[in-house]
Amino acid sequence: MERHEIEELIKELSLEEKIGMIHGQGIFHTGGVERFNIPPLWMSDGPMGVRRELEDDNWNPSGTTEDFVSYLPSNTALACTWNRRQAEQMGRVLGAEARGRGKDVILAPGINIIRTPLCGRNFEYMSEDPYLTARLAVPLIRGIQENDTAACVKHFAVNNQETNRLTVSVEVSERALREIYLPGFEAAVKEGKSMTIMGAYNKLRGEFCCHNPYLLQEILRKEWNFDGVVISDWGAVHNTLEAALGGLDIEMSVTNDFDDYYMADPLYQKVLEKEVDEEIINEKVRHILNLMNCLSMLGEERKNRTPGVFNISAHQDAIRSCGEEAVVLLKNEEDRLPIMLEGKKRLAIIGENAAALHAPGGGSAGIKALYEISPLMGLKIEAGGNIGVDYEPGVGPEGLKKAEILAAECEDVIVFTGLNHQSDVEGQDRKDMKLPAGQEELISAVLGVNENAVIVVLAGSPVELEAFADRAKAIVYTSYNGMEGGRALARVLLGNVNPSGKLPFTLPRCLEDCPAHKLGEFPGDETVVYREGVFVGYRYFESEQVPVRYCFGHGLSYTKYGYENLRVEKTSQGYLVKADVANCGNRAGLETVQVYVRAAGETIKRPAMELRGFDKVLLEPGEKRTLEFCLAEKDFSYYNEELKCFAVPEDKYDICVGSSVSDIRLKQRIEVNECVLE
Amino acid sequence: MERHEIEELIKELSLEEKIGMIHGQGIFHTGGVERFNIPPLWMSDGPMGVRRELEDDNWNPSGTTEDFVSYLPSNTALACTWNRRQAEQMGRVLGAEARGRGKDVILAPGINIIRTPLCGRNFEYMSEDPYLTARLAVPLIRGIQENDTAACVKHFAVNNQETNRLTVSVEVSERALREIYLPGFEAAVKEGKSMTIMGAYNKLRGEFCCHNPYLLQEILRKEWNFDGVVISDWGAVHNTLEAALGGLDIEMSVTNDFDDYYMADPLYQKVLEKEVDEEIINEKVRHILNLMNCLSMLGEERKNRTPGVFNISAHQDAIRSCGEEAVVLLKNEEDRLPIMLEGKKRLAIIGENAAALHAPGGGSAGIKALYEISPLMGLKIEAGGNIGVDYEPGVGPEGLKKAEILAAECEDVIVFTGLNHQSDVEGQDRKDMKLPAGQEELISAVLGVNENAVIVVLAGSPVELEAFADRAKAIVYTSYNGMEGGRALARVLLGNVNPSGKLPFTLPRCLEDCPAHKLGEFPGDETVVYREGVFVGYRYFESEQVPVRYCFGHGLSYTKYGYENLRVEKTSQGYLVKADVANCGNRAGLETVQVYVRAAGETIKRPAMELRGFDKVLLEPGEKRTLEFCLAEKDFSYYNEELKCFAVPEDKYDICVGSSVSDIRLKQRIEVNECVLE
Repeated sequence: MERHEIEELIKELSLEEKIGMIHGQGIFHTGGVERFNIPPLWMSDGPMGVRRELEDDNWNPSGTTEDFVSYLPSNTALACTWNRRQAEQMGRVLGAEARGRGKDVILAPGINIIRTPLCGRNFEYMSEDPYLTARLAVPLIRGIQENDTAACVKHFAVNNQETNRLTVSVEVSERALREIYLPGFEAAVKEGKSMTIMGAYNKLRGEFCCHNPYLLQEILRKEWNFDGVVISDWGAVHNTLEAALGGLDIEMSVTNDFDDYYMADPLYQKVLEKEVDEEIINEKVRHILNLMNCLSMLGEERKNRTPGVFNISAHQDAIRSCGEEAVVLLKNEEDRLPIMLEGKKRLAIIGENAAALHAPGGGSAGIKALYEISPLMGLKIEAGGNIGVDYEPGVGPEGLKKAEILAAECEDVIVFTGLNHQSDVEGQDRKDMKLPAGQEELISAVLGVNENAVIVVLAGSPVELEAFADRAKAIVYTSYNGMEGGRALARVLLGNVNPSGKLPFTLPRCLEDCPAHKLGEFPGDETVVYREGVFVGYRYFESEQVPVRYCFGHGLSYTKYGYENLRVEKTSQGYLVKADVANCGNRAGLETVQVYVRAAGETIKRPAMELRGFDKVLLEPGEKRTLEFCLAEKDFSYYNEELKCFAVPEDKYDICVGSSVSDIRLKQRIEVNECVLE
Repeated sequence: MERHEIEELIKELSLEEKIGMIHGQGIFHTGGVERFNIPPLWMSDGPMGVRRELEDDNWNPSGTTEDFVSYLPSNTALACTWNRRQAEQMGRVLGAEARGRGKDVILAPGINIIRTPLCGRNFEYMSEDPYLTARLAVPLIRGIQENDTAACVKHFAVNNQETNRLTVSVEVSERALREIYLPGFEAAVKEGKSMTIMGAYNKLRGEFCCHNPYLLQEILRKEWNFDGVVISDWGAVHNTLEAALGGLDIEMSVTNDFDDYYMADPLYQKVLEKEVDEEIINEKVRHILNLMNCLSMLGEERKNRTPGVFNISAHQDAIRSCGEEAVVLLKNEEDRLPIMLEGKKRLAIIGENAAALHAPGGGSAGIKALYEISPLMGLKIEAGGNIGVDYEPGVGPEGLKKAEILAAECEDVIVFTGLNHQSDVEGQDRKDMKLPAGQEELISAVLGVNENAVIVVLAGSPVELEAFADRAKAIVYTSYNGMEGGRALARVLLGNVNPSGKLPFTLPRCLEDCPAHKLGEFPGDETVVYREGVFVGYRYFESEQVPVRYCFGHGLSYTKYGYENLRVEKTSQGYLVKADVANCGNRAGLETVQVYVRAAGETIKRPAMELRGFDKVLLEPGEKRTLEFCLAEKDFSYYNEELKCFAVPEDKYDICVGSSVSDIRLKQRIEVNECVLE
């Protein structure tokens, strides 16, 4: 449909029809206008797959058997891959499944910054780092939208905790907002071309995000030129005028009194009473019709709309591939891993997380997975029927005793610990960073009788590992890793796959070390003040040289990589960084080479290290490759609150290339001239 | 292990150890002998996949997440493919999954003859015809056993009903036994080399099958040279001496008083008391050790044992391929099928069986499927998200009304009817052949408002179709068709797959027409007399010219096949039959060409038609192929009770080649000389 046709359509629509289009008329859809063949806009959670079907006007499952779907790795798991191609592929899967299930908008990805290990929705987000978040969000969104399905990047903005999420006001410096909390959204909008964005529940500086003209109009529309649709989180609107005038396009909520929504009858009245100019409504409808047009939902284009598909084996294969790259090998003394089963008869598996299924949990992100392969099943499948797999959950004093006996008897023991969606869950934050009760005791007991036991930590958030990290010889971290997660993990543990995951967040020694807790506030009360400013995650740990258990970007391999020959060349665009990386071991592997910029900080206090580039590369044994990274002026900048823009202070900068933020292999110092980026 | 090593081992085993090996010491395993590294023998149900793990000494599920498995088409579905290659492939999948789950013996296939539409376990069996059963059982068993897993062909013998199955005695003529009920088992043993066989619950001529020297010694061991292991059905043993001396090798049962099993302590006592010669025990142990040796369970061979694997995508692909060939197009007036969705907006789906999941049900054959795609989901996947799929179960007066409204509104309507594992179930027989209550009314109501509605009948047994078969334009039959069944069905309905299934049993007009009910007895009481003799299934309907709704071997295609040029040549082995079959339509398809022999019956009363050959062939549009079938003397024979062997009476025989038993396209008469087959 041409732009002028849309304008004509808007003119012909009655106010009632237009109001019907800008608020929920079912739990997951807006109203359509049948006389003009405008369909409702169908939305669905969520980032790990398309949510089960609900009854139209309530939250009860409809109970059909058509809504099992592919279960994707959580965003945290995806971020562990550090692989843009995996992000794009997962986007394609998610978009195709959403379209196949008849949806127009998939409420994903969640890209809020992981400010604290405790946030209940960390597993839905990617990283503590805005650059990694942005680089993965862009291809993920593009992948989704290849399928005539709109992404809905969320939650805009600073929705970094679940405690008091419906009311809390975030006080954050403009610099931290611009450097840490917004870059992911900016990239999602400007590069990813996300067609929709979801306003967060919380307030920013006293104003609800869904009513927030600074966020929704100044930044989103004016600075970023967003021309898509702004959708409220479900129930995040609290005032008709503020929402209507603040920049929100569609109000969604959780109740079935659809006509009473703030942007339903109450708004209709305000327009009749001339408190709201009808052009404000037209603008929202324009955004929605443009979106529908982009999705081939209008006119003759409908017949060319991508039909989508779900539950095909290609999706399962892609999910397994992503899951394999999402497993992070934290520690591997004496080459304990992989476990070589040849000639062995038994494998002992201990811990509830070996057998747990995670797909249904977590809140709105929970899904009805077509299937989910637990680690226990994955290990059985990969080990084959000649290996006896003994499993003991190890719960309670009796379980602990049984686990100890089993671990003492068996040469090869794997303990599965971590969290589940009782704690990695929407609507509440964890109370501490510890493993849930009993798990540290279980690990200690097992290591007490079998010092070679391998520890697997499955969690969507950072957890404390102090109780065993020195003692255990091998530790593996994995997040909620999708329907093939257990098989992917087994293939790494048994050596069919060489691990290549890297931590997308720091694993600190303890909660008290974390900047949000040490310097800032958490969870606050009516207000939470982000006093730590830009010193979030490794930006803090590296700057203050606070020791951590495993640093940002860390992840081992069954082979070794050598780095050499760093070259930094000035170009018209900025700097071209080249480095050679080689596989020095005897099995193929994927290495993620990371580029950090360290400002000497002679003029202004800045984070000691900031990620500015990364690339994941496959290297055969003995193979060497030269990787190139382009650094622009912005990569040396910080946000200057006085100038209200990013600026580069004249300073010395180290270009650091390495395998994690604290494993820098190559470094070169350059001097960069002052400039202002407007 | 060499044969003499096994003999030495037997000599070294104590009587107690030997007794421990020949009865259950857990619900699904025998005892091993640790001092000689003889492992227990692990068995598992069943024919549609490897049963969930149970606690060792009771029937409670162990509750782990490792025991989801691939769900295979039921044997009835497999038989609908009429494809030996599919049978072999399904055997490979089943064997690999059993081995992957650590099993030694998979309690499959079930190959009893479908004598009556009412038998609750019909879905676990293949056909009313012994030839089709034998030809599919052989590759199925071979496929299983490629994986160092033993098949356990069952239930030996004449276990053709569930009513009184634990006590009923079957009275059957020797001729019917030999011509109808045993050929499948004979082929399974002699050609399939089934390593184990399961004795049935019922009696044959007054003697429990598991105590039955005629079945187990005369026929199985002496005539067929079976050297494998005879395992009782669970709880089918009733007497120590009769079982031990009758030919049984392993007693399994359903209780956990393992030492009290008939072939446990009581047998031990009988040996001590010299009532049973220890050599009888040795012989059983010899069978078991030979089996273990064949399965690479003993000695150094262990490390070469196939490890097996389960839940891999190759298994799912194979299951889908089989499922696609198992869909039978019964009727297709006005080319109602396939449903062409191009340009359409909606598809209406009616009936509970569209959304039903069948894997868990049916009794011992029920499994914990990794997933199961319902027809509703399959249609959604294949139709894509641009087609609105409306679903109405149509249950009760209100559901019927809703279904009627939906069917009236929509151009394309599919009604899913049939049975589920409430009636196709172990342990009970159906009461009649009708669709369960309400379904005939639902179909009538839908056809009343939409004469084009397509009717799908999903059932594991013949059902009566009279209420709608004349009126409906398109009817499809499918059995429980595995984890990909719904997708396979959708691909046929929507035209992505050209149907090629053929009925492995007759669909009679009504129960009263069936020979077991008209001529024989069912279900009998203490005794059931198979008075119909050899006139089972189409053998009766064709001989007596009783009209049926859809005949044995019937199944349409979206293309047409032409038959021509029948040639019958005498060879030294018998007769070589050649016929040309051509695809006369414009899409590729698979046709099953069937060869029947019709004896003129001038000397002895014989079934009018008997299947003696079939082959399934892929034909591109316009392609013609010559098929060859070899007929041996046995193919013209009947069982002569006086001579106690098969014999060929001098007679005229029609060689009939066609697309079903009543759609004979080519016929040639030959004369065959008398001979006796010893």
